[in-house]
Amino acid sequence: MEQLFASAVQAIAPVDRNFEAAGQAHLDDLTKPKGSLGRLEEIALRLYCIQRGVRPLSADPARIYTVAGDHGVTAEGVSLFPQEVTRQMVLNFLSGGAGINVLAQTVGADLMVVDAGSCGGEYPEHAKLLQRKVAQGTDNFVNGPAMSRENCLKALMLGIELADLAAADGCRTVATGEMGISNTTPATALYSAYLGIDPADITGAGTGLDAKGIVHKTRVIVRALQANKAAIQTGDPVNVLAALGGYEIAALAGLILGAAKNEQVVLVDGFISTAAYTAAAAICPHVQEYAFFSHASAEQGHRKILGALGIKPLHDLGLRLGEGTGAALTLFLLRSACNVFNDMATFSGAGVTKGAESL
Amino acid sequence: MEQLFASAVQAIAPVDRNFEAAGQAHLDDLTKPKGSLGRLEEIALRLYCIQRGVRPLSADPARIYTVAGDHGVTAEGVSLFPQEVTRQMVLNFLSGGAGINVLAQTVGADLMVVDAGSCGGEYPEHAKLLQRKVAQGTDNFVNGPAMSRENCLKALMLGIELADLAAADGCRTVATGEMGISNTTPATALYSAYLGIDPADITGAGTGLDAKGIVHKTRVIVRALQANKAAIQTGDPVNVLAALGGYEIAALAGLILGAAKNEQVVLVDGFISTAAYTAAAAICPHVQEYAFFSHASAEQGHRKILGALGIKPLHDLGLRLGEGTGAALTLFLLRSACNVFNDMATFSGAGVTKGAESL
Repeated sequence: MEQLFASAVQAIAPVDRNFEAAGQAHLDDLTKPKGSLGRLEEIALRLYCIQRGVRPLSADPARIYTVAGDHGVTAEGVSLFPQEVTRQMVLNFLSGGAGINVLAQTVGADLMVVDAGSCGGEYPEHAKLLQRKVAQGTDNFVNGPAMSRENCLKALMLGIELADLAAADGCRTVATGEMGISNTTPATALYSAYLGIDPADITGAGTGLDAKGIVHKTRVIVRALQANKAAIQTGDPVNVLAALGGYEIAALAGLILGAAKNEQVVLVDGFISTAAYTAAAAICPHVQEYAFFSHASAEQGHRKILGALGIKPLHDLGLRLGEGTGAALTLFLLRSACNVFNDMATFSGAGVTKGAESL
Repeated sequence: MEQLFASAVQAIAPVDRNFEAAGQAHLDDLTKPKGSLGRLEEIALRLYCIQRGVRPLSADPARIYTVAGDHGVTAEGVSLFPQEVTRQMVLNFLSGGAGINVLAQTVGADLMVVDAGSCGGEYPEHAKLLQRKVAQGTDNFVNGPAMSRENCLKALMLGIELADLAAADGCRTVATGEMGISNTTPATALYSAYLGIDPADITGAGTGLDAKGIVHKTRVIVRALQANKAAIQTGDPVNVLAALGGYEIAALAGLILGAAKNEQVVLVDGFISTAAYTAAAAICPHVQEYAFFSHASAEQGHRKILGALGIKPLHDLGLRLGEGTGAALTLFLLRSACNVFNDMATFSGAGVTKGAESL
C-alpha cells in the first residue's frame, strides 16, 4: 500500500506552462478589451495549459464524487445533528432529494456517491453508489489517531481510484463533495496541524452551533491536537491525515492527487474539501496547479484559511452545506470560460477595430 | 410621452412580502442545515415573493437585452476604442461572435440586440435585432445636455416596451446588457450626480486607459457636471438622466422600470447597467426589490458605488466587458436557487432527522 501510494504521487507532473503564451495570445485576440473577462480568462488559460493546448477546451464531462464518512469525535457533542444523519443523507443522495442532487442536475454533472467510512451496514445497491467502506467511522481522535496509517492509505488509494474511474469514463473534471456529521471538527484540526493556525481562530459553527457550542468544539480540537502530538511532529503529511482526518477527507485528498496525476481539472468545494486539498498539497504541491476553488464558505475560518493558502475562490455565496454544492455551481464558470475561449470571434475575423494600447 | 411614462411608473408596486413567511418555512424544511445554502436561499425567497408564491419557482425563460448607443463625448478622447466599434460590435452580436453571444448560449438565455442610439445608418435586418434608434448618438455633454428630455423619455419608453415584449413572450427574467464606446464616462457622471460621489473617486480605466488617460477622463466628467449644473439642480431624475446619460443607459433604466411594473425579475449587469439602475431607482425606489446584481466590476469605482447603494453583488470575477456578460453568468445562480426551492426533499419526506436547535 505504501509503495502503491508513493508511486501514484511520484507520477504527478507539474502543469506544462509552455502553452501559456499561445493561450494568452488567443485570449487577447478575442473581440473584447484585453483581460475584460477577468477570472474567466484566468480559468481558460489554466485549462489550456492543463489540457496541453488541445482544442476545443472543455471542463466537461464532469463528475462530482460525494464521499461519506463518520467520525468518532461525534461522541463529544460537536454537532447539532446525530451521527445517523450521515447514513440518512447517503440514502437521500440515492433518492435524489439532497442539495447536491439538485445542483449536479442543474449544471449537468454526473454525481457518484461513495461510502468511504460511514457507520452502519451495507446500503441497498444503487448504480450511483460505490460501497467502499474502509471502516465504520473513525476512532474518537481526542484519545489518539482517528485512523491507522494503513486505513488512511486505503482511503487515499480509494480516492486515486475514483479519479482513475472518472478518467476511464472520459471525465475532464472531477469535483469534491462530502457528507459526514461532525466533519468540520477534523477539518479544523487538520488546518491547525498543516498550517499552524490556532484552532480558536478558525473553529466555527458547522451546522449551526451557538457561541457556547463553538467554545466546546474548540476545546475538543485542542485535546485532539494534544493527543496526536507525536504523529503531528513526525512532519509526515500522511501521518497527520491519519491522526486527525476522516475517511471521506482522506478519500478526497486521494481524489485530488489522482486527478493531478491524470491531468484532470479538480474542483474543490468548501470547508471540508479544502482540508482534503491541504492534505493533498502537503503530500504533493503540484496539485495546486490542477485545482480550482469553488467558494468561500460561511463556515467561520474558511476565509482565513484560504488567505493562508493564497487562494481566491470563485464564489462567495455564504454556502456551508458541503456535499459538493459549491463545486457544482462553479462548474458552470469553468464551462463558460471554455466556451468563451472556443467560440468567441477574433478581431480580424469579425472586422472589429482593435483598441489603441494607450491614448 | 410625459404622461405615458408617468403612468407606467405609477403602475410599479412593491413586492408583496406576505409570501415571505411561507417561503422561509419551506426553505427551512429542506434537507440541509438551516440557511446553509446562503445566498441561493436569499434569491429563492425573493423570487417566491416576486412570483407571489406560484410554484414551481422559475427564473426562466430569461431574455438579455444588449442595448447599443453612442456618445458625443467620445470626441474628447475618453476611450481607447474609436466610435465605429459600437456599430462593429452590434454586427458582431448579430453574427454570434461576441462574449455575450457565447455566454447567453451557455446559460440558455434568449439574446436580443437593440439599437437605441448608435451612430450610422440602419443595420441589415436580423431576427434578433430591434432597430429603435432615438438619435445618432448623444451630444457631447461637456457642452450641455447629452439628450433632450423628450429624447430621454423616448429611450425610457423604449426600455419599458422591451420589458413588455419579454413579458408577452413569457419571460420571467430580463437582464440588462449594453454596448457603447465611451459609456463608462456618462455612467460615472450619473453616479456623481445621483449619489453625490466625487468623480475623482470613481473614474476608472474603462477599456484600458492608463493613469494619464484616467486623469483626463475625470476632467471631462467634471466639465460635463459643470455644464449641466442647472439640469442636475432641478433634482428631477429624468432631467439628470437626459443631461448626463446615453440612449442605451436610458433604455436600460426603462427596462428596469418596466420589469418592475410587470413583476419580472431583473438581472443588472455591471458598471454601466448599475448606472441605469441608479437612474431607475431614483425615478421609482420599488425597482430595488425586483433587481438582482450580477457582479462587482473590475472598473474602479463600481465597488464603492455598490457600497453606497447597499448592494452586495452575486459574483466578483474581475469582469469589465459589459454586454450583459455578468448577468448571463448570474442567471445560472437564479436558476439554481429556483431548482433548490422546487426540487429538494423535505426532512419529513426523506426520513432525515432534523438537527437540534442548540446543544
